[in-house]
Amino acid sequence: MKILLIGASGTIGKGVAAELGARHDIITAGRSSGDVQIDIRDPASIRAAYEKVGAVDAVVSTAGKVHFGDFAEMDEEKYRIGINDKLMGQVNLVLIGRDYVADRASFTLTTGILTKDPIRYGSSASMVNGAVEAFVRAAATEMPAGLRINAVSPGVIAEAMEGYAPFFRGHDPVPAAKAALGYAKSVEGLQTGQVFEIF
Amino acid sequence: MKILLIGASGTIGKGVAAELGARHDIITAGRSSGDVQIDIRDPASIRAAYEKVGAVDAVVSTAGKVHFGDFAEMDEEKYRIGINDKLMGQVNLVLIGRDYVADRASFTLTTGILTKDPIRYGSSASMVNGAVEAFVRAAATEMPAGLRINAVSPGVIAEAMEGYAPFFRGHDPVPAAKAALGYAKSVEGLQTGQVFEIF
Ligand SMILES: NC(=O)c1ccc[n+]([C@@H]2O[C@H](COP(=O)([O-])OP(=O)(O)OC[C@H]3O[C@@H](n4cnc5c(N)ncnc54)[C@H](OP(=O)(O)O)[C@@H]3O)[C@@H](O)[C@H]2O)c1
Ligand SMILES: NC(=O)c1ccc[n+]([C@@H]2O[C@H](COP(=O)([O-])OP(=O)(O)OC[C@H]3O[C@@H](n4cnc5c(N)ncnc54)[C@H](OP(=O)(O)O)[C@@H]3O)[C@@H](O)[C@H]2O)c1
Repeated sequence: MKILLIGASGTIGKGVAAELGARHDIITAGRSSGDVQIDIRDPASIRAAYEKVGAVDAVVSTAGKVHFGDFAEMDEEKYRIGINDKLMGQVNLVLIGRDYVADRASFTLTTGILTKDPIRYGSSASMVNGAVEAFVRAAATEMPAGLRINAVSPGVIAEAMEGYAPFFRGHDPVPAAKAALGYAKSVEGLQTGQVFEIF
Repeated sequence: MKILLIGASGTIGKGVAAELGARHDIITAGRSSGDVQIDIRDPASIRAAYEKVGAVDAVVSTAGKVHFGDFAEMDEEKYRIGINDKLMGQVNLVLIGRDYVADRASFTLTTGILTKDPIRYGSSASMVNGAVEAFVRAAATEMPAGLRINAVSPGVIAEAMEGYAPFFRGHDPVPAAKAALGYAKSVEGLQTGQVFEIF
């Protein structure tokens, strides 16, 4: 398969690139890294990237930022960061991508454990993850014939614990290579409308 | 209790006003209806309404619009309607309201069954509901001491079936009076961070 992996240089993306790269052609993408430059916050940039790579068999996103911050200091603008980036960025990869991908292609988006298991400072991450997961379940039922869509919801990643540990006390870290299995299940399996929880 | 009910003139709001109005003082609010005018899409309007009503013991929202449409025709702009209204409108009721409400007050927001059980044309409703539910679970943990927040997720409302039936085949309609019990549980009980599913 020809797979477009947005966020390939990241903590999770590297794991996914290793897992899927063993069997498939990976086109890596990021804002400043990778084979193709793309900023998922900008629909024109998404369109340009799809034009460049042509029809792919799978689109995998391991990109998407949210603002982490004390709820007392969270205002509308801070929630909008995650809405514009991890939520609508990933949704636009699907909305725009459905016109470009190959027959029977899949989209795999990234959410995270905070949908269900919130942490201090994480209310925007939870919000955006919940939105992406419910979108995936609904959009799967209305996707153009043959196209699939899933999400992977990883726990906190072991390789990120150096920085994240103080915020994820009590969480059981998941190696990126294990999280990557969720992406393999989505891309290489046949399920659709699923949230593969790797935690 | 003194309860601010935004969306009091609506299908669900009328049921909530009847249930809670039997025991409490209800201040009704809507864009064009009610004791107080408020447009939840506009933070300035939210602030003005809170200034006007003073400290309330509960804020209940049964308001919030999304765009229903064929996924094939859904674009970013159409998802933004629900993000600006049912999602950020309700979230802003909390973000702004926390500075105005009484000690030990509660916020109760509305989502709906489409979070889990999607229908054709409902991908934006699902997305927004999923966002509000995950926000509620997370925000509850970080709320100022004593304040609570829950969501009620009603099934399709019996009183709305005249218009909604074609889109909700197979759904078991819930009378507004039954959905209203979820709001009573949230306002008059002690739980926080819950999604009360009434379906
Ligand atoms: N790390 C964890 O423990 C963990 C756990 C669960 C879920 N998640 C979620 O998984 C996702 C990835 O996390 P991560 O820790 O792997 O991130 P990361 O290490 O910061 O990597 C982010 C990747 O996405 C790319 N990127 C960032 N912004 C982009 C944009 N606007 N457009 C396109 N590409 C962009 C980056 O490339 P450039 O720098 O070149 O742009 C990089 O390749 C996030 O949504 C995160 O919330 C992470
Ligand atoms: N009806 C159902 O079967 C059902 C089932 C599950 C969930 N829900 C959800 O429950 C919520 C209410 O649904 P409903 O059917 O009861 O709605 P509805 O009958 O259309 O009533 C909406 C209410 O909200 C007010 N409103 C609308 N836009 C507003 C705004 N921007 N700011 C402030 N108030 C506003 C309206 O008053 P004005 O006209 O004066 O503005 C009215 O009181 C919606 O989010 C809906 O998705 C509905």
